[in-house]
Amino acid sequence: MEKVYEDSLELHRRHGGKLEVKSKVPLKNRADLSLAYTPGVAEVSRVIGADKKLAYDYTLKKNSVAVISDGSAILGLGNLGAEAALPVMEGKCALFKEFGGIDAFPLCLATQEPEEIIATVKAVAPVFGGINLEDISAPRCFGILARLREELDIPVIHDDQQGTAVVVLAALINSLRVLGREKEKVKVVINGAGAAGIAIGRMLLAYGFMDLILLDSKGVIGARRGDLSKEKFELAARTNLAGISGGLSEAIRGADIFIGVSKPGVLSGEMVRSMNQRPIVLAMANPVPEIMPGEALLAGAAIVGTGRSDFPNQVNNVLVFPGIFRGALDNRVKKITDAMLLAAAENIARSVETPDAEKILPDVFDKKVVAAVAAAIK
Amino acid sequence: MEKVYEDSLELHRRHGGKLEVKSKVPLKNRADLSLAYTPGVAEVSRVIGADKKLAYDYTLKKNSVAVISDGSAILGLGNLGAEAALPVMEGKCALFKEFGGIDAFPLCLATQEPEEIIATVKAVAPVFGGINLEDISAPRCFGILARLREELDIPVIHDDQQGTAVVVLAALINSLRVLGREKEKVKVVINGAGAAGIAIGRMLLAYGFMDLILLDSKGVIGARRGDLSKEKFELAARTNLAGISGGLSEAIRGADIFIGVSKPGVLSGEMVRSMNQRPIVLAMANPVPEIMPGEALLAGAAIVGTGRSDFPNQVNNVLVFPGIFRGALDNRVKKITDAMLLAAAENIARSVETPDAEKILPDVFDKKVVAAVAAAIK
Repeated sequence: MEKVYEDSLELHRRHGGKLEVKSKVPLKNRADLSLAYTPGVAEVSRVIGADKKLAYDYTLKKNSVAVISDGSAILGLGNLGAEAALPVMEGKCALFKEFGGIDAFPLCLATQEPEEIIATVKAVAPVFGGINLEDISAPRCFGILARLREELDIPVIHDDQQGTAVVVLAALINSLRVLGREKEKVKVVINGAGAAGIAIGRMLLAYGFMDLILLDSKGVIGARRGDLSKEKFELAARTNLAGISGGLSEAIRGADIFIGVSKPGVLSGEMVRSMNQRPIVLAMANPVPEIMPGEALLAGAAIVGTGRSDFPNQVNNVLVFPGIFRGALDNRVKKITDAMLLAAAENIARSVETPDAEKILPDVFDKKVVAAVAAAIK
Repeated sequence: MEKVYEDSLELHRRHGGKLEVKSKVPLKNRADLSLAYTPGVAEVSRVIGADKKLAYDYTLKKNSVAVISDGSAILGLGNLGAEAALPVMEGKCALFKEFGGIDAFPLCLATQEPEEIIATVKAVAPVFGGINLEDISAPRCFGILARLREELDIPVIHDDQQGTAVVVLAALINSLRVLGREKEKVKVVINGAGAAGIAIGRMLLAYGFMDLILLDSKGVIGARRGDLSKEKFELAARTNLAGISGGLSEAIRGADIFIGVSKPGVLSGEMVRSMNQRPIVLAMANPVPEIMPGEALLAGAAIVGTGRSDFPNQVNNVLVFPGIFRGALDNRVKKITDAMLLAAAENIARSVETPDAEKILPDVFDKKVVAAVAAAIK
């Protein structure tokens, strides 16, 4: 077993998971108890009972986010179920606290039925100031997100969609700046049309990119395909303007930008050489990217990013979600709009003072990023 | 406003609620992230995906309890809804941590429909090692508890039922010891037939008390009444052996023990004088008991307990629930049986070395009680 896996198992076993729930107030004597619990707490309940919005002033709702998964699309591992999702969601909650100062709690659900997921999230919503959906497989994730956004009065994002799309857009903004190109004039290929691929496609269009091609496991997504989900069909009408059919080899020819949210090794050096001059390659399959950075650079790529921390240009959602919810909680935002997300991407890009080919994004440990993203959510 | 209420509001506002969720593992650099999150965590997910029981070894499930309420019966305040229940449930979670070392998280539900409550609890169950239901009104609470106990493979208690019944039984065991009486020979009146009253009745019968009378807001519960819930009807068949009808004045005559889980001031000194010689009075209405201790003692009561910390003999669930779940989690108990609960009550009683009329229960801050209760849950 790889050492990182062995060490991670040992860490999880030694601590018995990663999260703990603690009191912020003392409970050492009767006086403490009378304020934190009965009889004093009765007054807090009465006050909130008369105006439930006051839960934002007097309870953990002020600073809490639920990280919710049904375990259907865990990392790159697939559908392993609720219990297997738990260590990932605990880790996500730990990141929320470390990077955003947010009290996040994982809820991994014993159901994968969309209506039951929606009902459960709505039932627990009173406790939370926001909902972060995570690792829910496409296409179910789109309908679940749309319904919850519509029906809840707290902000909801699906991080695999919005988080990924925002950080990719930030990376592209700086990449284009470094190379002196314009978003309206570049051809973009998005390989992978799951939660991330669809959301990236939608967000790039919203930001003003004009020429996109999406591919799923069956090839180029075009209006003539009869097997498309609702989300793919909608994007087919707004992308693939040249009406290309075929696979990645056909789609990639002459493209300026490759965005991979698909599988290890699917982008060859030859394909990169068939792209436009000095292309941008964001190969984000985990843990092994669509093409290794060295090979992409050798084939002429000007800028290469991956999901990994051991190469330059790590494209990582952790730059996004803590700030999104920090801003949403601080400003008591009820819906996170596309305009807020586009502004968040611009703020992330701007927080790199002098971007270059090896630094299109801030470091994940750069503490000013959270504030920059949060400033966009209001 | 009473000072304790004012101070409690101020405490809650200053801290923004009482709970925080923290990481137990460091997240300060890339190496930390690679173990607590990707890529290392993938191995933990794979291992649990292959055998979901291992969630008990590698995740917070090892030490977590959900404190779940629908806000329908908050303290003595009634049905104020989910948000108003939140400060109480946060307080309960803080007590779980302080007294039991347990990571408890509050879930206050936006539904009061039993099937939706059951479905929600089942949906979130993978995250938790146990479920503590709280402040759910009778009679819905009985069916919800029964279904969840049957359908989940983690322990479920409704603290207003089991927690209260266990601490009352412990108080009676020591009271009888102090007075040299036998459980088979005493007449017990339970005033109040909500969650607590029904559960106390059931538990006293299970422990071997023979002569019980229960009363609800309409008077003595007897087989001839046509308005009884299923739970009251079942108890009617096993209690009120003398076939009394009427109210508390009729029921209390000649009784040895009064147990009040009802309303302030309903037990008069005259009623106490109509009881058997040197009776036991547990008057647990909150914050004002059924009779004030001074008046009960003046009327001849030998032992008086209340729910309050400012009189001797505080009858408080906090002596029970931390130990119940500490034992359940440590021993990976799937169901909490009546036999375990009766043993827990005996262990609480036994942890008072030399009980007397002013000390029938251990102090709530007596740290050895948790271990004594936990030892019964296996």
